[in-house]
Amino acid sequence: MNSMTEPITTSGPVLVIGTGLLGGSIGLALSTHGVTVFLRDISPTAVALGTDMGVGQAAITRAPEIVVVATPPDVAANIVVAALNEFPEAYVTDVASAKETIVNRVLEKAGDKASRYCPVHPMAGSENTGVAWANADLFRGRPWVVVPHSATDPEAILRMRNLGVDLGSVTSQMSPADHDRAVATVSHVPQLISSLLAGRLAGAHSEDLNLVGQGLRDTTRIAASDPRLWAAIIAVNSRPIEKILREYADDLDKLIEALGGGEATTSRLVGQVTEVISNGNQGVSRIPGKHGTGARKYGQVTVLIPDEPGSLGRLFADVGKAGINIEDLRMEHSFGQAQGMVILSVVPEAVNDLVQALEEFGWRVVLDVGQ
Amino acid sequence: MNSMTEPITTSGPVLVIGTGLLGGSIGLALSTHGVTVFLRDISPTAVALGTDMGVGQAAITRAPEIVVVATPPDVAANIVVAALNEFPEAYVTDVASAKETIVNRVLEKAGDKASRYCPVHPMAGSENTGVAWANADLFRGRPWVVVPHSATDPEAILRMRNLGVDLGSVTSQMSPADHDRAVATVSHVPQLISSLLAGRLAGAHSEDLNLVGQGLRDTTRIAASDPRLWAAIIAVNSRPIEKILREYADDLDKLIEALGGGEATTSRLVGQVTEVISNGNQGVSRIPGKHGTGARKYGQVTVLIPDEPGSLGRLFADVGKAGINIEDLRMEHSFGQAQGMVILSVVPEAVNDLVQALEEFGWRVVLDVGQ
Repeated sequence: MNSMTEPITTSGPVLVIGTGLLGGSIGLALSTHGVTVFLRDISPTAVALGTDMGVGQAAITRAPEIVVVATPPDVAANIVVAALNEFPEAYVTDVASAKETIVNRVLEKAGDKASRYCPVHPMAGSENTGVAWANADLFRGRPWVVVPHSATDPEAILRMRNLGVDLGSVTSQMSPADHDRAVATVSHVPQLISSLLAGRLAGAHSEDLNLVGQGLRDTTRIAASDPRLWAAIIAVNSRPIEKILREYADDLDKLIEALGGGEATTSRLVGQVTEVISNGNQGVSRIPGKHGTGARKYGQVTVLIPDEPGSLGRLFADVGKAGINIEDLRMEHSFGQAQGMVILSVVPEAVNDLVQALEEFGWRVVLDVGQ
Repeated sequence: MNSMTEPITTSGPVLVIGTGLLGGSIGLALSTHGVTVFLRDISPTAVALGTDMGVGQAAITRAPEIVVVATPPDVAANIVVAALNEFPEAYVTDVASAKETIVNRVLEKAGDKASRYCPVHPMAGSENTGVAWANADLFRGRPWVVVPHSATDPEAILRMRNLGVDLGSVTSQMSPADHDRAVATVSHVPQLISSLLAGRLAGAHSEDLNLVGQGLRDTTRIAASDPRLWAAIIAVNSRPIEKILREYADDLDKLIEALGGGEATTSRLVGQVTEVISNGNQGVSRIPGKHGTGARKYGQVTVLIPDEPGSLGRLFADVGKAGINIEDLRMEHSFGQAQGMVILSVVPEAVNDLVQALEEFGWRVVLDVGQ
């Protein structure tokens, strides 16, 4: 773990309730900066492990300035309310990935005290859970959405934005309703769609799966996510998710109807599929590129590499010698082959130079091959 | 372009009808080996370009031994039948990505001559189309499915399998019905599901798209595909696609119903979502890993890298010095940050060594962060 040397704004003490991956990582990052961190969890083991790891201390020796509720989302509201009551001077936040349900419950139960409550959503997750995986760099470069409700005190908003900056995140601000619609769109619905697609593979013929290409691998990568965690997330954001899924289901039904038309209606089917794929083109073109520059079409160069230690190192050393910056990269594997492909994305103007340089270094290059 | 030095079995001459990306790449690979290749296309420009590129020659100076029909799928059957009639000694194949519709039409129209017809499906595509992108390595390491019908002559099967081996592909054999179900499962349905998901982004709020993470990027990557090409593919494989999409729609409807139940039925919703995500876990675990070893869980190590030329080169040089083989890699970008993350997959036993080595070299390492 590298230590952080940048000065931070959060002074603490900070109480972290729920010493899992997120709470543990927040505690660890703050402790690394010398902030006093207190830990609380229904699991004494989690607190003990967190203490051993330097995440924080078990004894609450002073009143906390900030309370971070990092529990599962289904219990977050009650714990936020309890924290507002227990620590009448503290600003309180929670890190759940859906907000409106929790905010409404807190507003209803905490009354005026809710002005000290400003929710946040740090958009960093992991396939692993638990404090053992806590990492001070978990939030670095990730979005940190500050989600004040209508009665949140401006000072609470400021504290929670500063906390995100201190952790190295990219902060922004949205209302609870806007936030929940946004995460339903970009995170919750894609998760369910991907899981449903992967679910269709559960009963597929084994021989069919030998033909799987990179397209299906990419489309189902997030389907390996944790069911328990996702069930809790979906349950607290069911309304916006339901709305989008109903629109998705309408599109799907139209397509299925066109597919079932038989040969007499091929032209209608072609028209319907063209519309589906074209709409998809339009949607995917709206996804921002890196550095917030908006979507940009990069040129792609595919390099065939032997599957042996050091071959990637040699490749990237040669790319480095060519002085060309790689904007993106991914790797593909073919079934049963001791050979991989690395797909390099570069600005379109650099494609020819890169191809020429790589071929001079003896690499086998294919232009722009996908699946 | 590197030349191929391995000896090949196909002797030719080979007539390629349809001088696009696939036909052009087959012609180029064979020509590189000294096989005589003839080109035919409704576009004289495509033939002229192919001739200039060394893909083959325009004049058919001898009877071809093999005819490869590489036209769009909706015209393939008629052209296969015409080729069987025009060249009574030739073995004829087509490279369309769905088979049963074409096979049935050929059997119906060509009678006994259909014994010389053995379809194949080379599973290599590209985001680019046209002979200008032809590449002799396009099929290297990719699946090449030989798809004989019930009346195919064994010699025709052998020729088409050899052709795949000559192009460097990994060959296998399936019946037309099995093949079409398989590609519907692993390719056509995922394409439509991904396009429908991306289509929901077309009308989304711009601010929502600033929260897009790697999960949605991966899930919608193939949604950038060509509408015209995909409409033709879907139209010739509509039955198996419809069957799978109906099952998918049933699963989706059940989920939507559970989402709409309101707070009184949270436990039912949690149960339904858990089932959807768990089924997805099971399905995705059936996707084979590289080298045909079956699915394998790799350990993941995330490295934060500055966005400057040569940083990837330095990283992989250091990985190479550590002597650790990288099984897979991908890159993530965060909105608005001049910093990227490279996610390295290695065998679980190598995770600790890799982390230690990278930290000694001064890299900032995060364990197993996804989104």
